[in-house]
Amino acid sequence: MLDIVIFGGVGDLALRKLLPSLYYLFSDGKREQCRLLCVSRSPLERDAFLKKIKEKLEQFVGTDFSEESWRNFKSILSYMDIDLSGQDGWEKLVDFINLKDNKCKRDIIYYLSVTPSLFAPICRQLGRKELNPDCSRVVVEKPLGEDYESAREINDILASCFNECQIYRIDHYLGKEAVQNILHLRFSNHLIETVWNNQHIDHVEITVSEQVGVESRAQFLDRIGTLRDMVQNHLMQLLTYITMETPKSLSADDIRDRKIEVIKALQPITVRNVAERTVRAQYTAGEIDGIKVPGYLEELEPVRDKVNGKGETFVALKVNIDNGRWRGVPFILKTGKRMARRFAEIRVKFNPPSNDLYDTRDGNQMVIEIQPALTVSIQMLMKQLMGADAAVKSHANRMQIATDDEHFKRVPEAYERLIGEVIKGNQTYFVRDDEIMASWKWIDRIRNAWEETEQEMKTYAAGTDGPDFEE
Amino acid sequence: MLDIVIFGGVGDLALRKLLPSLYYLFSDGKREQCRLLCVSRSPLERDAFLKKIKEKLEQFVGTDFSEESWRNFKSILSYMDIDLSGQDGWEKLVDFINLKDNKCKRDIIYYLSVTPSLFAPICRQLGRKELNPDCSRVVVEKPLGEDYESAREINDILASCFNECQIYRIDHYLGKEAVQNILHLRFSNHLIETVWNNQHIDHVEITVSEQVGVESRAQFLDRIGTLRDMVQNHLMQLLTYITMETPKSLSADDIRDRKIEVIKALQPITVRNVAERTVRAQYTAGEIDGIKVPGYLEELEPVRDKVNGKGETFVALKVNIDNGRWRGVPFILKTGKRMARRFAEIRVKFNPPSNDLYDTRDGNQMVIEIQPALTVSIQMLMKQLMGADAAVKSHANRMQIATDDEHFKRVPEAYERLIGEVIKGNQTYFVRDDEIMASWKWIDRIRNAWEETEQEMKTYAAGTDGPDFEE
Repeated sequence: MLDIVIFGGVGDLALRKLLPSLYYLFSDGKREQCRLLCVSRSPLERDAFLKKIKEKLEQFVGTDFSEESWRNFKSILSYMDIDLSGQDGWEKLVDFINLKDNKCKRDIIYYLSVTPSLFAPICRQLGRKELNPDCSRVVVEKPLGEDYESAREINDILASCFNECQIYRIDHYLGKEAVQNILHLRFSNHLIETVWNNQHIDHVEITVSEQVGVESRAQFLDRIGTLRDMVQNHLMQLLTYITMETPKSLSADDIRDRKIEVIKALQPITVRNVAERTVRAQYTAGEIDGIKVPGYLEELEPVRDKVNGKGETFVALKVNIDNGRWRGVPFILKTGKRMARRFAEIRVKFNPPSNDLYDTRDGNQMVIEIQPALTVSIQMLMKQLMGADAAVKSHANRMQIATDDEHFKRVPEAYERLIGEVIKGNQTYFVRDDEIMASWKWIDRIRNAWEETEQEMKTYAAGTDGPDFEE
Repeated sequence: MLDIVIFGGVGDLALRKLLPSLYYLFSDGKREQCRLLCVSRSPLERDAFLKKIKEKLEQFVGTDFSEESWRNFKSILSYMDIDLSGQDGWEKLVDFINLKDNKCKRDIIYYLSVTPSLFAPICRQLGRKELNPDCSRVVVEKPLGEDYESAREINDILASCFNECQIYRIDHYLGKEAVQNILHLRFSNHLIETVWNNQHIDHVEITVSEQVGVESRAQFLDRIGTLRDMVQNHLMQLLTYITMETPKSLSADDIRDRKIEVIKALQPITVRNVAERTVRAQYTAGEIDGIKVPGYLEELEPVRDKVNGKGETFVALKVNIDNGRWRGVPFILKTGKRMARRFAEIRVKFNPPSNDLYDTRDGNQMVIEIQPALTVSIQMLMKQLMGADAAVKSHANRMQIATDDEHFKRVPEAYERLIGEVIKGNQTYFVRDDEIMASWKWIDRIRNAWEETEQEMKTYAAGTDGPDFEE
């Protein structure tokens, strides 16, 4: 038996991501005894609730929607209004969960799909009403703090009610197929395992390039900036997966131990090196795919009185890892909004061969594409087929495993995978408390160095690739 | 200025392979002052000669034939009848070549597209008439001997008239794009260079699998057997390209020096190990692609009085190379007629990874496909997309560079490339005297061991993959 309780159950994230994912997981009618409870402040009749959910599902699962599946799905759905920041309505939840009769003959999952300021009151009530037995789990999502201190507070709130083994911190990048595949690629292939170190890799580029601007998140993003909104979580997750040592096993904690080792081995970026190791920038007006878009400061206009316009929309970092495997290999982390293209990838550039028989300027690269496509490719050099210098000149060929392989039918969305892992009770793809603290510590130093050195905020025209590092 | 003289100029090989290749090389009308002379015993009028050539071109170059190109091509063609084993007609060739007026202001290529028994009389005449200046080259083809002694004789005949740097011994496998690409793949890619040794490779399979039977070559093939017809030349060429050490440069002799080193490092197959290291076999009646085909001995019936039926139509060898790079890596050479499929490939199987986190039974392999397709592929393991054990089970994916890449328009035939190299005066893709002697020496020991131990001639049904090694 499984109860899933979504706090913020008719909010934007729930409607766009969580319920569609649960629909894929539960609408085949095969799972027994699952209940899915959406909780929110406002009273809502069952019919109106179901109508809302159905509309959104039709919108977000598209052609995968069917009346039959919907009949299965709605039979497990219910709604409850509770004052999340207060006292009212919690007894209804106690009755619903009904631990007295069923104590721990099932799993209970609480999904806190609410603003972090509600974590404390919700956890307090769950604790008081003893709705947090060992068989319960809690799922939370970014922003998990805005710096080391605030992250510490959130961890403390969660820890006051749940043990660490019950806490699932989502970084949705860890739910992506391409990311979950990284360890498999690295450790099941002798070819990759062999070359995955500073003897063979020249440098690595980790790029998350977005075309969207700040839009409705302007106020939040200006306060937070891209370093905290994107690098502290998504890009650092990619970095740890690409660089971790071989884990002892595939258990959640063996893998997460390895990730923390890497974060702790990151060379600090401080006032001493911040100028050459980082770039921060904001976009100005420009054109993307032929459409004119406003600059960052213009987009802030509607909330001008609530922001200071100092949030960066682009960050590039040159990161070094102080361990035997990676010493000397630069990792270029780069992410920005309003860039020329939308894509996320990890690009590993290998050393040239040890001989100089051929023109090898293009060299070997391995690219793990995370979005929009989902490919792994290796660039190999071969002879040119014909022409005067065919024997010596190289032709760079791309060997690729593509998404349109038969193997890939419907690639499940990150949330669907991650909720599936929560149900299984597998914490592998969730961020542990010590990891989140270690990464905030490293990120905070960069922000401090920017502040102390008053590092320039560069600009880049929307629709370009962003500014380069200082020479 | 360039003169190409084909002895045996209206023979089967010339009509099927050489003239179509020369047509591709010369019919664009852009090369100046080239003359192409076909020489044969029989008198033939120019018109009849041109008619014959045109017919064959239409047949063998297919849609690439055009009247305009033919006009260009026929303007450089001429025919001459000479008694190749005697004295008559050679003065005509002296007049044609006309060295007195043009000594060495051009290149002269003699293509001996004739049976080896004519090499001696032709070379004798070329020498006597002083038609062998430094600017001349001679091209010969297999069979270049049937054992060490007869190969020595042919080399001596050629050496009596030409210097080694003027002699081009063709093994048409060296003209194949896939083979010419091997060194480029190995030495221009750091990834491949790194793993190309016994630390990373478990074993290598080199297979040339034919569907044809002995057919019209029955008498010759029964005497020679597949070991001498296929292994001594084609398979050993593939082996040397796959295994040679890094050459000092891409010069013909630096590469050929490396090939001979490998042949000299081959562990001898002798009476002591021949039983476990070799398989020889003949096909019996069977079915290929749904069509019934007769057995080898039945195919020999028409020439039964001229053969003893002891030629092998299938050979498998387990070869070891006694050097630091390859010690301990078995190379399985396998070739046969009337096999299930027609293909030639080099399959390199890599070691498993050093960890046991994942199921890696399928492992990494690299396949260089030589025919019918022309691909290079690497098998990579990735996680399975979904399913209960998706995270641990591996899916073997093929990363491939395919022939239908835009890069590959018309892949020139082996002969076209090789004649092009003769014209350039580049001996890289031709077999040097010492190499041919070294390979015959190694092959002769296998034949002697078969004879001394009276090794069993196994059988295999046509349309199968041939017999295995003894356990």
